[in-house]
Amino acid sequence: MGAGADRMSIDVLVSEVGPRDGLQSLKAIMPTEAKKAWIRAEADAGVPEIEVGSFVPPKLLPQMADCEELVRYAVTIPGLHVTTLAPNLKGVERAVAAGAHKVSIPVSASETHSQANVRRNHAEMLQEVRRINEMLGELPEERRPVFEAGIATAFGCTMEGPVPEGKVLELAHALVEAGCREVGLSDTTGYANPAQIRRLVRMVRAEIGEEKLTGVHLHNTRGLGLANAMAALEEGITTLDSSLGGIGGCPFAPGASGNIVTEDLVFMLESMGLNTGINLDRLLKVRDVVAEALPGAEMYGFTPEAGLPLGFHPGWGTT
Amino acid sequence: MGAGADRMSIDVLVSEVGPRDGLQSLKAIMPTEAKKAWIRAEADAGVPEIEVGSFVPPKLLPQMADCEELVRYAVTIPGLHVTTLAPNLKGVERAVAAGAHKVSIPVSASETHSQANVRRNHAEMLQEVRRINEMLGELPEERRPVFEAGIATAFGCTMEGPVPEGKVLELAHALVEAGCREVGLSDTTGYANPAQIRRLVRMVRAEIGEEKLTGVHLHNTRGLGLANAMAALEEGITTLDSSLGGIGGCPFAPGASGNIVTEDLVFMLESMGLNTGINLDRLLKVRDVVAEALPGAEMYGFTPEAGLPLGFHPGWGTT
Repeated sequence: MGAGADRMSIDVLVSEVGPRDGLQSLKAIMPTEAKKAWIRAEADAGVPEIEVGSFVPPKLLPQMADCEELVRYAVTIPGLHVTTLAPNLKGVERAVAAGAHKVSIPVSASETHSQANVRRNHAEMLQEVRRINEMLGELPEERRPVFEAGIATAFGCTMEGPVPEGKVLELAHALVEAGCREVGLSDTTGYANPAQIRRLVRMVRAEIGEEKLTGVHLHNTRGLGLANAMAALEEGITTLDSSLGGIGGCPFAPGASGNIVTEDLVFMLESMGLNTGINLDRLLKVRDVVAEALPGAEMYGFTPEAGLPLGFHPGWGTT
Repeated sequence: MGAGADRMSIDVLVSEVGPRDGLQSLKAIMPTEAKKAWIRAEADAGVPEIEVGSFVPPKLLPQMADCEELVRYAVTIPGLHVTTLAPNLKGVERAVAAGAHKVSIPVSASETHSQANVRRNHAEMLQEVRRINEMLGELPEERRPVFEAGIATAFGCTMEGPVPEGKVLELAHALVEAGCREVGLSDTTGYANPAQIRRLVRMVRAEIGEEKLTGVHLHNTRGLGLANAMAALEEGITTLDSSLGGIGGCPFAPGASGNIVTEDLVFMLESMGLNTGINLDRLLKVRDVVAEALPGAEMYGFTPEAGLPLGFHPGWGTT
């Protein structure tokens, strides 16, 4: 949580993943100082949670090589919840050493994608999750981050096509058994539609318990991102990942955009009177910080271009 | 209805308004033959209804000067439902003479916008609606188009800001009393959010009867278009206006985009197993027809850029 808000008063937790998911998809490497300025500016705007990077080998993703420094910096910002991604035990150990509040491990529902992404199949990933859980169990509680698995390609895979829901349910169950405190559902490929979101969220929550599925990670690849976000919210989801300017996506597929756009998401939520703890005017200004540090990168989002409506105030659509 | 579908089998009626709402917002004038090619191509893709133009004085909107010729052409396409906009009695008379199946009159909930748009206040517009209704009543039934009022700025006005819901309810009631068979709600300014859509649709339907409010007209100005469309559908709305490539919007406000994008809307609906009667592959090809006729015009939409998902088929997200 940033400067603005009391975490308890938040209706929907917007988790900024741009410094991780956005930047890892771009060829350009953002300087560490610019990343810090971005993280600071979003926290100052009231963004309660930021995924600052990924603990992957720098050889694979040089864009993420400064993850440790970013975690160490971000945890000094009062109230900010600092999360990172880590694909394996070693990555989680690094996250713990740096002091991250939460670590997510991506586990792909599609075996083909799992192999491509982390070079492991489901059985191997579950074994890794058990080892991580064991390691975390030996830590004193105050140093133990929340350990979550993000089920990637939960709504379809660019290599396999449709992913059977049964496979997602099975994986969610196994991940909780193996020690994950929470499981998230990721529409890594931007394949999902609102009906599918509703159904899968409902099924997984029935399988593992409502408190163990509270977040979804959506992409706006086919323009359905906010419609999918609404569907998730209406099924009880309370954490939504998003990326400032929707940065990310694949540089080789024009329009294959990144995550849902933080600015548009926050405008939607605040319009409806759902408190995010975020100050929209300040959030919109963060865009300049990112644009300056990523010259030429495509940024998405309609609200930043159109501006806020005349007479807008949070919850204005509720009376 | 175009070549593809049986109107009775359609779950959601996608009404293409690009040739009217899209083109009237652009400075460029699309040649009549290009408009015909667009209309034909969309009808061939199965689009069941197209708003082909607006019967406004050509001096005010030269882009719409060929509306009569377009109606005469479009009604020859088997099964296509041909609609037009008309701001007054004279326009409706021209629509009737050309043989339009449906005519919409825009009546703005905001008096300020009403004056700016049609130079008339509510009382004057209601008087006009009564005169139109009288004229239509004298026609033989087979020549009488469906007469609808579109309540513009129903969710907020760029000149007045928030628009009281009571004013929209009152206006909807008065328009039905004055003889409109249906009333639509238009988010002319892209101010709406899903909660507001749900509430206002519910209130207006309770006021005038469900069968008299079946359609909404949404803009994607702040990126919430498809989320708003979902909210409307879940409240029982069955007709959604959209524009191919989301063309339109204001040329002086970058990103202040036009209507929701037909391609993304149809992808969303068909993904969910809601039959639109539209063939997505053919629809995506229509974009070339429009792009060629409007060189340099900004076109929106994510699905056309990203392409359809691997293994996609209508209703794939429903099993």
